[in-house]
Amino acid sequence: MVEKESRIFGRNPVKEALLTNRVKSIFLVEGFSFKEILNLIHEKHIPVTYLSNREMNNMFDGVHQGVAAVIKNYEYYSLDSLIHTAKKQEHPVIVILDGINDPHNLGAIMRSCDVFNASGIIISKHYQVPLNATVAKTSVGAINYVPVALVNNLNQAIDELKREGFWIVATDGSASTNYQDLKYDFSVALIIGSEGEGVSKLVLKNSDYVVKIPEHGHIHSLNASVAAGILLAKIKEND
Amino acid sequence: MVEKESRIFGRNPVKEALLTNRVKSIFLVEGFSFKEILNLIHEKHIPVTYLSNREMNNMFDGVHQGVAAVIKNYEYYSLDSLIHTAKKQEHPVIVILDGINDPHNLGAIMRSCDVFNASGIIISKHYQVPLNATVAKTSVGAINYVPVALVNNLNQAIDELKREGFWIVATDGSASTNYQDLKYDFSVALIIGSEGEGVSKLVLKNSDYVVKIPEHGHIHSLNASVAAGILLAKIKEND
Repeated sequence: MVEKESRIFGRNPVKEALLTNRVKSIFLVEGFSFKEILNLIHEKHIPVTYLSNREMNNMFDGVHQGVAAVIKNYEYYSLDSLIHTAKKQEHPVIVILDGINDPHNLGAIMRSCDVFNASGIIISKHYQVPLNATVAKTSVGAINYVPVALVNNLNQAIDELKREGFWIVATDGSASTNYQDLKYDFSVALIIGSEGEGVSKLVLKNSDYVVKIPEHGHIHSLNASVAAGILLAKIKEND
Repeated sequence: MVEKESRIFGRNPVKEALLTNRVKSIFLVEGFSFKEILNLIHEKHIPVTYLSNREMNNMFDGVHQGVAAVIKNYEYYSLDSLIHTAKKQEHPVIVILDGINDPHNLGAIMRSCDVFNASGIIISKHYQVPLNATVAKTSVGAINYVPVALVNNLNQAIDELKREGFWIVATDGSASTNYQDLKYDFSVALIIGSEGEGVSKLVLKNSDYVVKIPEHGHIHSLNASVAAGILLAKIKEND
């Protein structure tokens, strides 16, 4: 079921993929002149196909900036290897996404995980946006650095994390604890829910802490990647 | 130049526009059955046009969820009235966007402004994404609550804010001060730069404080709306 390769586009994602040696071949629009990428292609001996702007537009549904690449597909980590990697840190943070379906959000959350040194992301096989070209583009290359584990059942993954010494922190608007009142001086598995539905009931019940970001306005919901960023920044701040 | 009306789509934006009395007429896909919106349309006597799903798809370039509306256009505030409104708060926060061109980011920043009770947003006429249907949709209705001032020149606006007692806080990766080391116990004008270019040099020079969000990874850039959310949450925390 898993394809061995996929296509990405846009300068930053392609540059990051080149730097991390995941590029098999390159498409360039005729006259492409962005030196940094041309040098990397040359240096790494990547085969190039030149296309007209119209051909590029037809092949890629998004802003390709004149460059696209066929890359070795993103490899998912197993839950065990993700936990194993995480436990090498003193206060590891793993992010669990419960039903995030917007690739822009997933990409933005990957960037925050990279910036705040979270160990990785756990997503569910059934309800999640897959790792694709849009995620790669909106992650601005973070997809190459942030391990993602795909699990069948989030609650089983949570049980496993608990056995491995992680404390489960979920966010919910109805919580009585504010997010800034925890010390986060432990191994954290942070659960971010979908914007529409929030964290699902069983997962909430399975959590050790439920915290809220206090809301002072009319709309009562932050963008999911913004909420994740605020929590990750706070956890890192207390590190 | 400013149009008097525009079209929005999607359940939440239309619901918010109905609640804030900005809807002139409604398009519904045949068989639309979402009670909350139907009741509001009925209650507010809004004229309805029924369309087939194909007609809706042709009219709206995005996920319309079976409902769209013609609304009175978003009204921009003058800088003076935005400042006047802000100064009614004890520690007002105004967000200045320096070259944010992604409507998803603008919408997400509006949501954060609403949640953290920022007084409004200042954008530049020349370099900014306009308030449109995509912004309205991604703001999930926050566009109805967060005043936006459109100015000719950001640096002149900054000078005006200084005269009115605001301290200008900009974010830049090269800053020596961490964002969490300021107390924010003053009137804040928070400048968020574009992802590609950051805050422009003249604006940085014009700022009272330049702070950074410490980065621990490989990518060295947060999504602009995530960075804005982290700053707004921190400023509100110290309130």
